[in-house]
Amino acid sequence: MHTLTHFRLCPFSRAARLALAELNIEVELVEERPWEWRPEFLAVNPAGELPVLQMEGAEIPLCGIYAISEFLAEDSAPVQEDGDADEPFPLLPGDRAQRAEVRRLIDWFNGKFNREVTHELLQEKVYNRLQPHAAGTPDVDFLRAIRTNLRYHMSYISYLADRRRWLGGEELSFADLAAAAHLSSVDYLGEVPWEEFAVAKVWYARLKSRRAFRTILADRVPGALPAAHYADLDF
Amino acid sequence: MHTLTHFRLCPFSRAARLALAELNIEVELVEERPWEWRPEFLAVNPAGELPVLQMEGAEIPLCGIYAISEFLAEDSAPVQEDGDADEPFPLLPGDRAQRAEVRRLIDWFNGKFNREVTHELLQEKVYNRLQPHAAGTPDVDFLRAIRTNLRYHMSYISYLADRRRWLGGEELSFADLAAAAHLSSVDYLGEVPWEEFAVAKVWYARLKSRRAFRTILADRVPGALPAAHYADLDF
Repeated sequence: MHTLTHFRLCPFSRAARLALAELNIEVELVEERPWEWRPEFLAVNPAGELPVLQMEGAEIPLCGIYAISEFLAEDSAPVQEDGDADEPFPLLPGDRAQRAEVRRLIDWFNGKFNREVTHELLQEKVYNRLQPHAAGTPDVDFLRAIRTNLRYHMSYISYLADRRRWLGGEELSFADLAAAAHLSSVDYLGEVPWEEFAVAKVWYARLKSRRAFRTILADRVPGALPAAHYADLDF
Repeated sequence: MHTLTHFRLCPFSRAARLALAELNIEVELVEERPWEWRPEFLAVNPAGELPVLQMEGAEIPLCGIYAISEFLAEDSAPVQEDGDADEPFPLLPGDRAQRAEVRRLIDWFNGKFNREVTHELLQEKVYNRLQPHAAGTPDVDFLRAIRTNLRYHMSYISYLADRRRWLGGEELSFADLAAAAHLSSVDYLGEVPWEEFAVAKVWYARLKSRRAFRTILADRVPGALPAAHYADLDF
């Protein structure tokens, strides 16, 4: 059995789980709290980052969402023309230029969106509280700044979803999964102003109703229950 | 002619320049100061990030080092067995597992190393000074913390270079170029304690003496001259 070391609300871990589920690759999930810097975990991934995918029989584990997603994409890129509908979709579809556009967006969400929204929110609302010497309540001004960032990103998602069938183009790609992974973590915390972004909401609803999304929606973190609509497909 | 929009000390721009030079792809360099957030630049790359590669005749530009390096790697992966020595080397050599290891290290330098060292140093010592309302002298305690981070990363580079011919394995890869790009920016600022890390120094000297490195070593930023040994191949 393959093993994925993850943390339930970590957006990179979620992106890996979504990709694996879409590709019908079953994995055993092992939870890690990366802020604990456990020596045993650092021995596996010296960067101390999640997720880590140990493929059955592989000598070394795949560390980080970049290595994992590209590894999976290399296997999920069938060149055949007549694939049936149930076949795993290519994580990076299209020609070289189209793949570059998909990668630009993956980078947008795993880089920029993470720095400006997900990482900050998780740090403030979840990670700080789960530490032994928990900090106080989240800082109001800081949260307001993150929410402003989030609205800017929601506008960009709406802009893309209004012009294309999926974020990276006409085909579903890992850009959608990465974006949805980040949004799902933020949505768990009840921070996504869906009512203001109808087009982005329709795009997200299409992803949310996919079978691959189910385990993500079943996640619960002790001490941080999800927003009421979190697992609701008709939110 | 292809065009690369870059900033001279930006490590991602440097990594792209090194890869292009190694692949013998000539580009015209156009300098951009990303902190100015020029509307014309944001119209090209809404993320406001460098580098941006406009391939001649291509409809849309390649934005960010992830999209650019993977785009170039797709073309630089000759499957033929009998390539002659002058042929461009594959940016991501080896089999799937080896490529995953190379990508893990690219992620290490463009993610972790950048956050903990390059970005912070450039912000403190270069970008802040080039802004219209320049901040004062760099904060001593902050610089000390960055230097501690750097020593940790230098140890890791030494560890890898001691066990492998190149950082990602037996073959030169984009992991070496990304690492060298970051180190070259830090070295420009005179911050690399080479005397403490002899193995890392030997690895870097091998890269520094490659033809592709020449333009990087010729860079000069107004108001921030390089360390005396910066362009010296026998440093």
